[in-house]
Amino acid sequence: MITVGILGGGQLARMMVLAGAPLGLRFVVFDPAADACAGQVAPLQVGAFDDTAALAEFAARVDVVTFDFENVPAASARWLAERKPVYPNPVALAVAQDRLSEKTLFQELGIALPPFADIRSRDELAAKVAEFGMPCILKTRRLGYDGKGQFRIRSEADIDAAWQTLGAQVEKTGLILEGFVAFDREISVVAVRARDGEFRAWPLTGNWHVDGVLSASLAPAVASSSQHDTAIDYARRVAERLDYVGVFALELFCRGDALLANEMAPRVHNSGHWTSDGAETSQFENHLRAVLGLPLGDTRMLGHACMLNWIGQMPEAGPVLNESSGHWHDYGKQSREGRKVGHANLRDDSAVALADALERVGEVLGVQAQVAPVLETLRR
Amino acid sequence: MITVGILGGGQLARMMVLAGAPLGLRFVVFDPAADACAGQVAPLQVGAFDDTAALAEFAARVDVVTFDFENVPAASARWLAERKPVYPNPVALAVAQDRLSEKTLFQELGIALPPFADIRSRDELAAKVAEFGMPCILKTRRLGYDGKGQFRIRSEADIDAAWQTLGAQVEKTGLILEGFVAFDREISVVAVRARDGEFRAWPLTGNWHVDGVLSASLAPAVASSSQHDTAIDYARRVAERLDYVGVFALELFCRGDALLANEMAPRVHNSGHWTSDGAETSQFENHLRAVLGLPLGDTRMLGHACMLNWIGQMPEAGPVLNESSGHWHDYGKQSREGRKVGHANLRDDSAVALADALERVGEVLGVQAQVAPVLETLRR
Repeated sequence: MITVGILGGGQLARMMVLAGAPLGLRFVVFDPAADACAGQVAPLQVGAFDDTAALAEFAARVDVVTFDFENVPAASARWLAERKPVYPNPVALAVAQDRLSEKTLFQELGIALPPFADIRSRDELAAKVAEFGMPCILKTRRLGYDGKGQFRIRSEADIDAAWQTLGAQVEKTGLILEGFVAFDREISVVAVRARDGEFRAWPLTGNWHVDGVLSASLAPAVASSSQHDTAIDYARRVAERLDYVGVFALELFCRGDALLANEMAPRVHNSGHWTSDGAETSQFENHLRAVLGLPLGDTRMLGHACMLNWIGQMPEAGPVLNESSGHWHDYGKQSREGRKVGHANLRDDSAVALADALERVGEVLGVQAQVAPVLETLRR
Repeated sequence: MITVGILGGGQLARMMVLAGAPLGLRFVVFDPAADACAGQVAPLQVGAFDDTAALAEFAARVDVVTFDFENVPAASARWLAERKPVYPNPVALAVAQDRLSEKTLFQELGIALPPFADIRSRDELAAKVAEFGMPCILKTRRLGYDGKGQFRIRSEADIDAAWQTLGAQVEKTGLILEGFVAFDREISVVAVRARDGEFRAWPLTGNWHVDGVLSASLAPAVASSSQHDTAIDYARRVAERLDYVGVFALELFCRGDALLANEMAPRVHNSGHWTSDGAETSQFENHLRAVLGLPLGDTRMLGHACMLNWIGQMPEAGPVLNESSGHWHDYGKQSREGRKVGHANLRDDSAVALADALERVGEVLGVQAQVAPVLETLRR
């Protein structure tokens, strides 16, 4: 009996546990919060990510370690890796934790991306804003996610405001300035690499964000065949360079037929949630297959699939469950503003039927704005 | 947050828990065994099914009660039903627990079935054997499953042997003699009925048993359209008469174009395990949707699916996971002779591809005899 340790006990860990139980796996989930939602489906060890005594106890209970949360201190990941196999490896995690390292890696691998610069002072910020033009975005190098730790600079006056908001982070997390890209669409590659180097990607996913947080996804995404090939090639290059093992996501901007890399997430990813109901093998199962050295599962799609994120609180389930294509994913969390508490997947063999279902769900739940861009894409 | 109580903590409860967590459900599983495998994924309360104090504690922890095991004492089900909603209702459970009640009900509903008789003495047995002809089968009315509590009578001499083996059960469980049917095929209807009476069935499943235990299933089953309609109509009649809520299976024998009912199982059923990977909604999820009064999910198939039961011990997972159609279901149980410890599902859009995968799995795992009848059916 193999026990998998997961650092972080949120919905990603929860869905890994649910996907891993049929593989005969047991789990221990490690999280600072006693009410972490994965604790409803697996033993939870409560502890701080930098508490060595707690990590030692965790390491003793598990055979292999993986992540639900990428901002585990790199030092903790390295410490664990000296004791138990850790996938993805701590170097890959460290690179993906740091926007500057990540973008530098993309650049080295010949992956197109928007301009970026390491920022160490207000003067450097002003100089680079002048170089990149406005708008542009000042971000923390580390520990930002879902639009947090970011400041959009739209005018000269914003430079001071941005520095006042984030300048104090320069020593703690570092800062990076990113040029703004007027993109047509956002897509992601969700892919998996096995211990033996085998690489597979799910069909590309189209994504829509609201206030920096994923709102909806559609697979397969609208993309030209050259965009498709380029995106998957980019993901493969990153995975091979990092000797990555497990599932990861690479987010990209589409501008005309061009593709620009945005960022990678070294874990199962919100834009891959549709795979639970819309692919032969889900991202959660394939992550575990990779981590355990099992054969990878087929990443083919079953029809067309769309995912709607529920933020803050769960809506009524009935309108989604009433749809023949409707699947519900409640993370078992308390409601809280801005918190991801669940999602719905809709899957159908027919894109027309999927659009019709999505439209009904949008109307009955009053989320027309959330479904509108997906509907428009499905019906164009 | 709704907590579902499940009486019985085996693989059926385990798969219900895994299917129910995404609906936001919590579970408490009740089982006499401290190592019941559903206890790996949900809180387990250890207790005897007739221990009123334990049942009272269980009732206090849950909002609604259902079953993984149909041989919970009918009195315990009734006792619980006075305190919490119990689905299926205790009367339905009691009827399905007793082969004589069940077959009498089939007869009342105009459902064709093999001859049967209540047996109270050795003389009655001998008289009914003479009437039905041989072979025929003496069974306990209650508490038999997977071929246990049965004696096949092939000759006059077997009458004494059967009575010696099972005669002592006449007061405890009752006995029933069933005429033997020389059938061509065995099929089952796995169906679900909602609290509001809505009824849905998955496509018919073809089943192969070895020594009374399910060995393999294939869906959709080979059946004429009249067999299909009759089988589903039979299932609907039974469910309506019993005011049944939840998933159940009706097992039938096919002889030419005729159908004869064998028995019903008042719970999710081994012959519906393929639905986890081969249907839009699994039997486990739909059982919970029914029990909770949620809309039923779509029972349509995705392609063709086959299930192989693993009895005694789990084989190596690799050969199944290597197939693009392969899905693994390990129940997390200790090996034990005759015990159901897991199953594999294979699902493919193409019956030809499914057969090829099945043949490879049969060869690599050395289970050619297990896959042979399924292969023959797929390729005929």
